[in-house]
Amino acid sequence: MSHWYYHPVALPSAAMAEQARAHQNQLTKPQGSLGYLEDAVIQLAGLQQRAMPELNNMVMVIFAADHGVVEEGVSAYPQIVTAEMIRNFSRGGAAITVLAKKLQAEFQVINLGTVAALEELPNVRDSRLAAGTKNFCVEAAMSAEQLQQALSVGRDAVLEANKMDIFIGGEMGIGNTTSAAALACALLDVSPEELVGAGTGLDEKGIAHKAQVVTRALALYSEKLNQLLSILQTLGGFEIAALVGSYIACAQQGIPVLIDGFISSVAALFACKINPPARAWMLFGHQGAEKGHQRILSALHARPLLQLDMRLGEGSGAALAVSVLQNACLLHREMATFADAGVTDKNP
Amino acid sequence: MSHWYYHPVALPSAAMAEQARAHQNQLTKPQGSLGYLEDAVIQLAGLQQRAMPELNNMVMVIFAADHGVVEEGVSAYPQIVTAEMIRNFSRGGAAITVLAKKLQAEFQVINLGTVAALEELPNVRDSRLAAGTKNFCVEAAMSAEQLQQALSVGRDAVLEANKMDIFIGGEMGIGNTTSAAALACALLDVSPEELVGAGTGLDEKGIAHKAQVVTRALALYSEKLNQLLSILQTLGGFEIAALVGSYIACAQQGIPVLIDGFISSVAALFACKINPPARAWMLFGHQGAEKGHQRILSALHARPLLQLDMRLGEGSGAALAVSVLQNACLLHREMATFADAGVTDKNP
Repeated sequence: MSHWYYHPVALPSAAMAEQARAHQNQLTKPQGSLGYLEDAVIQLAGLQQRAMPELNNMVMVIFAADHGVVEEGVSAYPQIVTAEMIRNFSRGGAAITVLAKKLQAEFQVINLGTVAALEELPNVRDSRLAAGTKNFCVEAAMSAEQLQQALSVGRDAVLEANKMDIFIGGEMGIGNTTSAAALACALLDVSPEELVGAGTGLDEKGIAHKAQVVTRALALYSEKLNQLLSILQTLGGFEIAALVGSYIACAQQGIPVLIDGFISSVAALFACKINPPARAWMLFGHQGAEKGHQRILSALHARPLLQLDMRLGEGSGAALAVSVLQNACLLHREMATFADAGVTDKNP
Repeated sequence: MSHWYYHPVALPSAAMAEQARAHQNQLTKPQGSLGYLEDAVIQLAGLQQRAMPELNNMVMVIFAADHGVVEEGVSAYPQIVTAEMIRNFSRGGAAITVLAKKLQAEFQVINLGTVAALEELPNVRDSRLAAGTKNFCVEAAMSAEQLQQALSVGRDAVLEANKMDIFIGGEMGIGNTTSAAALACALLDVSPEELVGAGTGLDEKGIAHKAQVVTRALALYSEKLNQLLSILQTLGGFEIAALVGSYIACAQQGIPVLIDGFISSVAALFACKINPPARAWMLFGHQGAEKGHQRILSALHARPLLQLDMRLGEGSGAALAVSVLQNACLLHREMATFADAGVTDKNP
């Protein structure tokens, strides 16, 4: 029997998308003049199987883990920050938690592997698979079994959540732009120089060093990097694998997903490579400032709702895009039609 | 004594902007990682003269008027739609009114000149200067006196409004992308082919015809188009002149302005040409799909918060951007600092 992540995903409703499109064309505005808001609401109608989609119930899950590759000196911040930020999430002081509270989202952090174990914290689940991944410049980041576990943690976060209109997965892990860049290089066969960026704030010298680290890693495993799951196991992070699992599970459960920034987009790309019809369930929240993000979005044929030059991760770009989507739904639902308002439609 | 619109504008507080910047740098995120949200909140702090800016009280005024140039066949919609949409605004069925209601904004429509007088309508003020402008392919769109009146209507809308954290000016007027394109061509000395777009939905043939109409108008007045106010009088619309007046008045009163799409941006450009320091008081909500908008934004050195391919006007793009700005203020106010959260800052 095949692994769960190859199982078929749900089918969006073409009929409901069509009904939403027809409704948009009757609203008192030139056809198409709401631009991307129209596209988004039509997609959402198909995914939510209703002509009047809504975004009231949101689930946000932040997957967190540490990265062995940090010992190569690839991050502007020390590794302890992963654990410290988990505490900050728990207390509500981080960007994503401020936004989650405002959106009244169901919010949870899942710790897949900080270096040190953490004390019990509100809204934080301990699912540590190890004390961080291994340094992939030396050995594979995780074992095959750990990869399966990480994917399952992502899936279970979706399966155990309450009914939702949309799912947002976020991530936290010092070093994870290095892992994400390495993953994308292997997947898309592009050079590290194209995809490696500043992360949390490296200078040019730091970026060049980070690109060299990725280059070394890719050379080390050149023979192993021809299978999707091997790539993820060799170069991945626990939180990135969990995101992949969560995105595929959402598609299987028929739950729309709002993708965040660079790291989430790399996870989305893996999800789509593993189970291509999962792509239909994705909307994209934000194009970030991280160098490689545009390249990943192109590979996904994705157009994000926002471009605000953010580079924070955590799910923050997706959370900001929620209000744009909510407004799209609101306009769709509440605007008058030409007939209702007695407004003359376009010249015949 | 010089005209009111040349009078000095208010001075933003550099100290408050600096205080906001310093606060941003203490929040638990990599410095600069909130991207454009950081820039926007710092600008807003300077404008609102407080380190913790807020966007609670909004005033939205939609200026509406008809355009004589419509008789040249430049719009996809018949002229009666201007009046019909004013009724739709009054009843709350249009995009901008749905958004204004959600934002609990103070909302008003000012009719500067529909072809026919309208019955009394809630939230609509009758300030008709004429039955629309004249066809500027034949004669100047308005008289010098009408221009002064239109500018004053815009100013008075600001002076008479309640205390506000931000002002949004919108517009409605069948034919007004033609007027705005002509104005911008004269102001920036670029060819109509660069700035004339589809408006409410012309096809390629329609766009080519519209560009020819603008070309004819520019040739007709070539000698008169060397002064800002003459350009506005000759090619303008009443609602565009009112927007110009409102933007300058906001800058003089120390009220931040959120600029909408193509037409509003042309008005913003005039405001800045007439009274250059007014630029400091402007934020830009949305880059629209209308062809010439990017060119106008470049001339203003403006970067809009959103790019959603909308082409609706009414103030709708600016209204959508409000939630992004509100989130920027929320994060600024509610995120924890490194010290409070016990999170380690960047490696030294």
